[in-house]
Amino acid sequence: MNRDQDAFGHALYDYQQSGGKDPWAIVIERDDGMVDADDARNYFAEYADWPAHQQQAMAFAQGRVLDVGCGAGRHSLHLQGKGFDVLGMDESPLAIETCRLRGLEHTRVMSITRVSSKLGPFDTILMLGNNLGLFANPVRARWLLRRFEAMTSPNARIIAETREPHQTAEPWHFEYHERNRRRGRWPGQVTIRVRYRDYATPWFDYLFVSREELQQLVEHTGWVVERLVDSEDTSYLAILAKASRRVRP
Amino acid sequence: MNRDQDAFGHALYDYQQSGGKDPWAIVIERDDGMVDADDARNYFAEYADWPAHQQQAMAFAQGRVLDVGCGAGRHSLHLQGKGFDVLGMDESPLAIETCRLRGLEHTRVMSITRVSSKLGPFDTILMLGNNLGLFANPVRARWLLRRFEAMTSPNARIIAETREPHQTAEPWHFEYHERNRRRGRWPGQVTIRVRYRDYATPWFDYLFVSREELQQLVEHTGWVVERLVDSEDTSYLAILAKASRRVRP
Repeated sequence: MNRDQDAFGHALYDYQQSGGKDPWAIVIERDDGMVDADDARNYFAEYADWPAHQQQAMAFAQGRVLDVGCGAGRHSLHLQGKGFDVLGMDESPLAIETCRLRGLEHTRVMSITRVSSKLGPFDTILMLGNNLGLFANPVRARWLLRRFEAMTSPNARIIAETREPHQTAEPWHFEYHERNRRRGRWPGQVTIRVRYRDYATPWFDYLFVSREELQQLVEHTGWVVERLVDSEDTSYLAILAKASRRVRP
Repeated sequence: MNRDQDAFGHALYDYQQSGGKDPWAIVIERDDGMVDADDARNYFAEYADWPAHQQQAMAFAQGRVLDVGCGAGRHSLHLQGKGFDVLGMDESPLAIETCRLRGLEHTRVMSITRVSSKLGPFDTILMLGNNLGLFANPVRARWLLRRFEAMTSPNARIIAETREPHQTAEPWHFEYHERNRRRGRWPGQVTIRVRYRDYATPWFDYLFVSREELQQLVEHTGWVVERLVDSEDTSYLAILAKASRRVRP
């Protein structure tokens, strides 16, 4: 990812460098013309200001932690502060630079598809902030889940967050889901890009799955859904544990 | 403007109908790829929450008022509440529908280029919220200023807001200004479109002028700059009065 494409990283880096000044918008553009916006502030939120389900997520962390798509490092820095050995990785060079400026000790600029056992072993893989989406599509999700299985300890967990794509009353989401189905894609597989000032990422796929789809996704990957944690909105946490470790009651 | 193009109107109407629920972003896209975002909340702000220079602007209103680009009607409704005879006009059908729902009595769906003496006479023309920008370019600005002169009373005022385009430390604005100069345009003439959900307006020109450019703009239009009112940021108010009325001290 070159600097002109690092829209998300520029947003985080500018906010860090500005000392928290009122930030420019981070615009999310979907390939059907839908737009919405956010800004960098949430990515710098302190533990006390996180939504409850993300706070709860921290209780499932153990041992050596890999934070996949760590952004400005809010979860990594929290865990590092608690004494965990954390590696923050992100595809965005400027996101990682931001993490370093904020004091995150172990970082890597890397795409999720390059994560391998060379980095391991890990006891926890974090994918918060809807970062289950980085799996991009079901095929890549299963491939990466298997790879994650091979680079983690026997009692490891994946703590992933996604958003229920079907709980929507909005016609424009229904239409998008229907279009996906016609194209043989899962309904919650969205093609988006991130824009900030005059920076724009390439278009990429991002995956939202329902609780039922999640069960399908993890089958035969070496993982099982250990627990689901609801949030106040349509996001939820999936705590995955190793199938080999699972003890049925 | 058809409904699919009425991005701004949809944003205002949705916010009105939602009863003030957390709104989707209104994205402003410039033709060099710059993006930023806002949302509907500001357009519904009550007088107490306006920036000081907009509150001061109200003191210059008199007689019959035309609010050009009235949006969700915040200025029109305030003046109507004070007993002024106000006509709110906007090119956006859903902005005007929103004004009606909020109780604005006199409204018109109309482009600024269709405003004529058929609506007049007026004693005040309001162009707040950077709506001087609706003049689009210097040629159209002068043409419309002359037309406004002909449809207003001898002691009429134009109360217009714009933003100083040159007070920027941002390289991407400098580059845009330079590009404009090379193309023979005024630096602050920006080509933008408004996007909201999957609605998008056509591309249109919007004009920001410095205080010096404003003086140039009004020359020989029948108007003079009576007063400038600064704001806390780079926006400012221009109070224009008729040249024919001007009494030199």
